[in-house]
Amino acid sequence: MGDVFDRVEQDFDESVEALLGLLRIPSISALPEHGEDTRRAAEYTADQLREAGMENVRVVAAADGYPVVRGDWLGAEGAPTLLLYGHYDVQPPDPLEEWTTPPFEPAIRDGRIYARGASDNKGQMMAIIRGVHAVMKATGKLPVNVKFAIEGEEESGGKALPNFLRDNQHELRGDAVLVADSDYAKPGLPALLTGLRGLVYTEVEAVGAAQDLHSGVYGGIAPNPFNALAWVIAGLKDTSGRVLVPGFYDNVKDPSPAEFESWKNLGIDDHQVLTEEIGSAEFFGEAEYPMLQRTWGRPTLDVHGIRGGFTGAGAKTVIPARALAKISMRLVADQDADEVLRNFERRVQELATPGIKLTVRAINVDAPVAASADGPGMRAAGRAYVRAVGVEPALVRMGGSIPVTTAFQEHLGVELVITGFGLPDDRLHSPNEKYDLAQYREGIKFTAAMLEEFGRN
Amino acid sequence: MGDVFDRVEQDFDESVEALLGLLRIPSISALPEHGEDTRRAAEYTADQLREAGMENVRVVAAADGYPVVRGDWLGAEGAPTLLLYGHYDVQPPDPLEEWTTPPFEPAIRDGRIYARGASDNKGQMMAIIRGVHAVMKATGKLPVNVKFAIEGEEESGGKALPNFLRDNQHELRGDAVLVADSDYAKPGLPALLTGLRGLVYTEVEAVGAAQDLHSGVYGGIAPNPFNALAWVIAGLKDTSGRVLVPGFYDNVKDPSPAEFESWKNLGIDDHQVLTEEIGSAEFFGEAEYPMLQRTWGRPTLDVHGIRGGFTGAGAKTVIPARALAKISMRLVADQDADEVLRNFERRVQELATPGIKLTVRAINVDAPVAASADGPGMRAAGRAYVRAVGVEPALVRMGGSIPVTTAFQEHLGVELVITGFGLPDDRLHSPNEKYDLAQYREGIKFTAAMLEEFGRN
Repeated sequence: MGDVFDRVEQDFDESVEALLGLLRIPSISALPEHGEDTRRAAEYTADQLREAGMENVRVVAAADGYPVVRGDWLGAEGAPTLLLYGHYDVQPPDPLEEWTTPPFEPAIRDGRIYARGASDNKGQMMAIIRGVHAVMKATGKLPVNVKFAIEGEEESGGKALPNFLRDNQHELRGDAVLVADSDYAKPGLPALLTGLRGLVYTEVEAVGAAQDLHSGVYGGIAPNPFNALAWVIAGLKDTSGRVLVPGFYDNVKDPSPAEFESWKNLGIDDHQVLTEEIGSAEFFGEAEYPMLQRTWGRPTLDVHGIRGGFTGAGAKTVIPARALAKISMRLVADQDADEVLRNFERRVQELATPGIKLTVRAINVDAPVAASADGPGMRAAGRAYVRAVGVEPALVRMGGSIPVTTAFQEHLGVELVITGFGLPDDRLHSPNEKYDLAQYREGIKFTAAMLEEFGRN
Repeated sequence: MGDVFDRVEQDFDESVEALLGLLRIPSISALPEHGEDTRRAAEYTADQLREAGMENVRVVAAADGYPVVRGDWLGAEGAPTLLLYGHYDVQPPDPLEEWTTPPFEPAIRDGRIYARGASDNKGQMMAIIRGVHAVMKATGKLPVNVKFAIEGEEESGGKALPNFLRDNQHELRGDAVLVADSDYAKPGLPALLTGLRGLVYTEVEAVGAAQDLHSGVYGGIAPNPFNALAWVIAGLKDTSGRVLVPGFYDNVKDPSPAEFESWKNLGIDDHQVLTEEIGSAEFFGEAEYPMLQRTWGRPTLDVHGIRGGFTGAGAKTVIPARALAKISMRLVADQDADEVLRNFERRVQELATPGIKLTVRAINVDAPVAASADGPGMRAAGRAYVRAVGVEPALVRMGGSIPVTTAFQEHLGVELVITGFGLPDDRLHSPNEKYDLAQYREGIKFTAAMLEEFGRN
């Protein structure tokens, strides 16, 4: 790898310039007035793939949404195929007044690039592209076949890429996909994700009377949808944090011993999380499990808000006709999201009280994602970090989801290698988002090493 | 009473004119721009008292609010003293476009006066004043002593009259107070109120984390104030409608046999209430009690709304830092509102879950009101209805409260005689409020007869 790593160093200024160019494009996919900018970022990304030696590079228009950027290099006959993912769109930058320098005028201070998207995901995506670029320039070829599939709707929940994967399964066949949309466990310690929680997000509506009633007149005989939802919610999770949906825990798998071991070595201080991140007097939840298992390896249920009725100042004595609760469940492998939803609906209906009609609507049904540390892609990534950074990566999970990973798993059945080159303090989605140049360099080197290591499988 | 009732008939056109004059004044106490109008209505009311032969009539300015109108006739030595109540302010008239004729240009159609306040309470108050007027004109004196105490803040929740009663207990000593702020049980059947439910209205706030958290990251360890409130609410009332606040039912008295008998005779159809008024498939509540007992004679608890969190469209996965529920209890005699509030707070705190801080704030603490059908005022009122209308009045209750009755009871300890001359379809607080002229006439006659019958006690 010496030649390749030398090349990374030699070309690093060019790599920085390439990233700065992309960061200057305000490709905010959630804001329609930035539609042209977002499309321009797709073209810029395609140009970067061409410079990296990709063939058949194209910007594929989506029927409804922003284009998918494609490009391949398929000259490694007999070698495995690695899919490479990224997204060229970014979050809106508000509140603007909190930025030290403007979000789309990237500034380098103290070895860090400050800009919207610096880390999420332009910086991470460019590390992958520049890693491929370095190998190609140093050796004239790649040790594996690669297929890029880059989207522009990650920050706005668009379906262009999932649809593209669904409709082009043959074209996108491969052995693993590298998704760099996460971060290091801490400075100096890269991480590989072995699991992401799924999400079943619902609205539960309770309807009682045909119209709002006065509690003086009807209190004692009228069904009250707020009291009814309280009984439902109280019947969905007990006060020890156990979810009461039938069968909820049947398929829940414990993390592997290697994961437990890795989690211990992260040195995360529970008390610090409680006092500095949460800020409450106590944790709430399944006290019999360690903290990280509860956020990474255990499913749970939360209410996000309850709409309807009277919430103003004073004492309006209304018995509202209807109320609506936003309730979601986080799932872990191997829970089946559709089955959980069905059992949830049944449980909700079981908890209905007289005079109340309950309706459950699903807003999101995202399966949990599991990535075994023993897969060929994951083992290659582990070796690649040792070569590029000199450190064995931690095995971690995420409590939230990266929906695109589900799409890769569902439509292509490829192994997931989920990692990232940012740091936990990169302030994704917040003012003064940043990306350390040293992390960028490590991400480029990791990608180069990953191509070689994956080729050894 | 023949002479007096003749006088009522002779002067009835004048009585109607007197009422129309008051109805032309838009005395909307809740709207500051009608401050002058509201004060003008007080002066108009004082003039009516003078015309009725009251002495020492005065408009007593309140430190903060609209004046109390006072006036007495104390010439019946040795006879009991009857306090007479009314309010000269009205509800806002919106929505204006739904009125057939303008709310402050009273119109008579088909024997009914249409105007804001026609029934509530200008029409009822004027019936009392004109009843006194008729006796005075016909006989030159009254058979009892009377003291008027009329307020202008009933519709805006002001404290001028309660404060006045508190501060002038000696001046306002009496044996009973006549409050005409209710209605007939149905056309042709006057009613005396034997009970009003009290109201303890609270806000229960739950605070978990120091700021909103992401359920992907913190779900499983962070306290959730919405789930916490659901456990609290579910722990305050069970699904059979029983309130779980300790001691809640200790002092609850059953209605008297006479009341039960009277309720049966009202001929109220439970099924019609369910389908036409409530519009749900079933009643909710204490199935072991009859419907009217549940709304008139049993205490209950209702949630009116829950503030906070995310209630918009879509799937925002926030664990909110705080949530606030508006929860009230309706009380019946002889529950002690302050004691109920204390026990409620204790119960709420008992139901707190780990990591959640709960705070209870009282917004309203109104005691329930009981009026025995056997008191001298109530017996006199029963006889007066027989003489004036030819019908024995029904004994009914109200599920809501008339806060001023509590003030009369608390500060003066007088017997309450709560009745009214309107009909259930008078559309109080709604567009096209009306008052039947025949009801006005009966109200005037009842008042005249009440003075005489109360004098016999």
